Amino acid sequence: MDNSPTDIVLNRPTQATTGATGDPVIKPSNSVTSIEKWLTRLMLNALNHTPIFIQLPDGSRISPAGSDPQLGMIIHKRRSLWLFISNPALYFGEEYAKGHIEVVGDLVDFLIAVNQARPPLHKMNFFNRYVVEGFNRKRNNTFNKSRNNVYHHYDIGNEFYKLWLDENMVYTCAYFPAPTATLEQAQTAKLDYVCRKLNLQPGETVVDAGCGWGALAIHMAKYYGVKVKAYNVSHAQIVEATARAKQLGVSDKVSFVEDDYRNISGSFDVFTSVGMLEHVGTTHYKTLGQVIDNSLTDKGRGLLHSIGQTEACAMNPWLVKHIFPGGYAPTLREMMGVFEPRGFSILDLENLRLHYAKTIENWLQRFDRRQDEIRHMFDEDFIRTWRLYLAGSIATFRKGGAELYQIVFSREAMNDIPLTRAHLYSDVVDTRLDRKAWQIVNL
Amino acid sequence: MDNSPTDIVLNRPTQATTGATGDPVIKPSNSVTSIEKWLTRLMLNALNHTPIFIQLPDGSRISPAGSDPQLGMIIHKRRSLWLFISNPALYFGEEYAKGHIEVVGDLVDFLIAVNQARPPLHKMNFFNRYVVEGFNRKRNNTFNKSRNNVYHHYDIGNEFYKLWLDENMVYTCAYFPAPTATLEQAQTAKLDYVCRKLNLQPGETVVDAGCGWGALAIHMAKYYGVKVKAYNVSHAQIVEATARAKQLGVSDKVSFVEDDYRNISGSFDVFTSVGMLEHVGTTHYKTLGQVIDNSLTDKGRGLLHSIGQTEACAMNPWLVKHIFPGGYAPTLREMMGVFEPRGFSILDLENLRLHYAKTIENWLQRFDRRQDEIRHMFDEDFIRTWRLYLAGSIATFRKGGAELYQIVFSREAMNDIPLTRAHLYSDVVDTRLDRKAWQIVNL
Repeated sequence: MDNSPTDIVLNRPTQATTGATGDPVIKPSNSVTSIEKWLTRLMLNALNHTPIFIQLPDGSRISPAGSDPQLGMIIHKRRSLWLFISNPALYFGEEYAKGHIEVVGDLVDFLIAVNQARPPLHKMNFFNRYVVEGFNRKRNNTFNKSRNNVYHHYDIGNEFYKLWLDENMVYTCAYFPAPTATLEQAQTAKLDYVCRKLNLQPGETVVDAGCGWGALAIHMAKYYGVKVKAYNVSHAQIVEATARAKQLGVSDKVSFVEDDYRNISGSFDVFTSVGMLEHVGTTHYKTLGQVIDNSLTDKGRGLLHSIGQTEACAMNPWLVKHIFPGGYAPTLREMMGVFEPRGFSILDLENLRLHYAKTIENWLQRFDRRQDEIRHMFDEDFIRTWRLYLAGSIATFRKGGAELYQIVFSREAMNDIPLTRAHLYSDVVDTRLDRKAWQIVNL
Repeated sequence: MDNSPTDIVLNRPTQATTGATGDPVIKPSNSVTSIEKWLTRLMLNALNHTPIFIQLPDGSRISPAGSDPQLGMIIHKRRSLWLFISNPALYFGEEYAKGHIEVVGDLVDFLIAVNQARPPLHKMNFFNRYVVEGFNRKRNNTFNKSRNNVYHHYDIGNEFYKLWLDENMVYTCAYFPAPTATLEQAQTAKLDYVCRKLNLQPGETVVDAGCGWGALAIHMAKYYGVKVKAYNVSHAQIVEATARAKQLGVSDKVSFVEDDYRNISGSFDVFTSVGMLEHVGTTHYKTLGQVIDNSLTDKGRGLLHSIGQTEACAMNPWLVKHIFPGGYAPTLREMMGVFEPRGFSILDLENLRLHYAKTIENWLQRFDRRQDEIRHMFDEDFIRTWRLYLAGSIATFRKGGAELYQIVFSREAMNDIPLTRAHLYSDVVDTRLDRKAWQIVNL
């Protein structure tokens, strides 16, 4: 039996499962039954006949009739095949990380093909939904769980993130004012864009919830002359952020607090949160709204930046188990659960989905360039897990369904706002700070 | 007893109700009991001690302790007082229209004062909510009801609307690129802004739901080279729109259909609806989403423009009874009921609340300049009703809580969208149509 990687085998159950041909390449443990093939075909059919193949442990390949796909996956072990069939959303990733499942062709291209083949949620039948969502459900992010969730992801080492993030260590969607912008330019542009959207004035006070390594807090203090109090439950991030603020000479203007957003205290002109809502959990949106309400002055305003989705779909169970425990990307309807109970006014919403795809493309390229160092820090499984996470994220943002919402809001009665958004895009001299505003962005 | 309009009388129940002073000015029917005064004070307290007075039929005035308000209302009849107390949200307007209640000072200023004094919905107790909402509830807008609702408002005469709208008869929120823009400029700028947000390309097809007098449909066809099918249930508007398209030489590119949005048929690149959602009713949002889904091509996109509100409050019962039967301004959470069941992606949302306040200020000024002609068409009650409606709208948009959302959306998988919004604000030559794009807007 021809077992080469370019072989396309359609519906040949008897050959492989009976072993009647006596092919010595296929070990008995790797033989595949007709039921297994039938189930694999069902999985493939759920993907709407997208041109990818699945190669089974016996070397046979299943692909849509009449197609000759270049992209595909090889399942090396029967155990992996059964795990994959039993819960593809979870075990594709787990078996891929172990090297028991391999992808033929570019990983991002393969995942884009799979994603594009997937019907939108409202058109899925029960089986489709199961393939996509598994049995994963939302969970309640209490204080302790939140801390553990964050440790799991953000505390695995500042040195690791430094290898492939931009110089300011911004681990959220960048803003590409031009398609040719570099990652450093796009991340700086994003920080500036956020400040512009908030119309920050020197002397104002800002609270930043979920501040990462402090890039936004530092940028606001350094270039917009505001005082910032920034919260984060990640110890490693707070240590790094504090050191950076000192190094950049803004320690007097920025204070970093190692604490949960629910413990924010004080009164501020502006509330910001970039990339935290994904970890809050829908059951706590009302609490977050309450925190914002309690933190803001009468003329207060703010910006919330979060991954979202078009339809309320449970997160991929592999992603939640291995990358973002407790993570959830809300729909806009769900996000309004933060604002409406407290009567906040939404002023501006921008969807930066394609900017996030570009951002993560940059991250994956940098990650790949530093693979040797990362392998030294962790192991091969870690690299495969993270590559799948980054490539999968590119695929979902390219395909759509996963979105990136940047929302500007204010108190209901706040009239001290620019009449139009034109100032966000004008190349003017900002006399307040003796710097050319937007200088980094207009490339 | 001094009964002059500048008199401030605080807590003088015995004088007026007993008639012991024998004052000949106060007729027995206009005397006021202490209970009536107490109830009036309760109403005023619900307005958070805002400095306005209420003058009762006996000439006595009630106002917050220690204040000397210049703005206030005079209730001329005891019957009006009781109606006002029993359901202020409904009867203030009705008695005002009849001249039984008068406002001292500028009507807009008075209504802004009242609106600003009102606590936000989530802070209201039952009594507050009753004062604001009355017993009005949402109603189901079936085909027939929708038609009747629209007849009620839009079919009262094209000649009437021509007196005070801009030359293109745009009866929705304008866009003021600069505060100094005239109403004509701002309405044209709005039409152009909508086209830009949709990134219209020559040869594309557009369906416009609830097209008014056809200004947007005509603008899109004339300046952006698209083919438009525009729907409206108002006979008077369809007749006028058809005549206008003919006059402007775009009859071959625009067809006006006198029908309900639920009967839209055909496949289009773009869906637009400016100022219709307010008449759809939340129970039909899912149907509207279905209509949009069925109308759009795979690369489809659209724009929905609607009055909204920050918290889900029933509409003012007077407004619903006399101006907009079946009308309701949704929250964003409610609006997502149009998009999320069909997995549409929200690309951009802009809140034009202050633009709507400016728009209606222009309308009221023009309305006032044409009062004689309008009085000739209708009567004094009509003028008072419409002035209250326009002034009240200015007040609610100035105060906030009432919002104007302009939402751009697309199919989930639509990637053929501009990377940034900068093109909306750039002053470039549009070579496609040999015209300077945005020429009207950059004043």
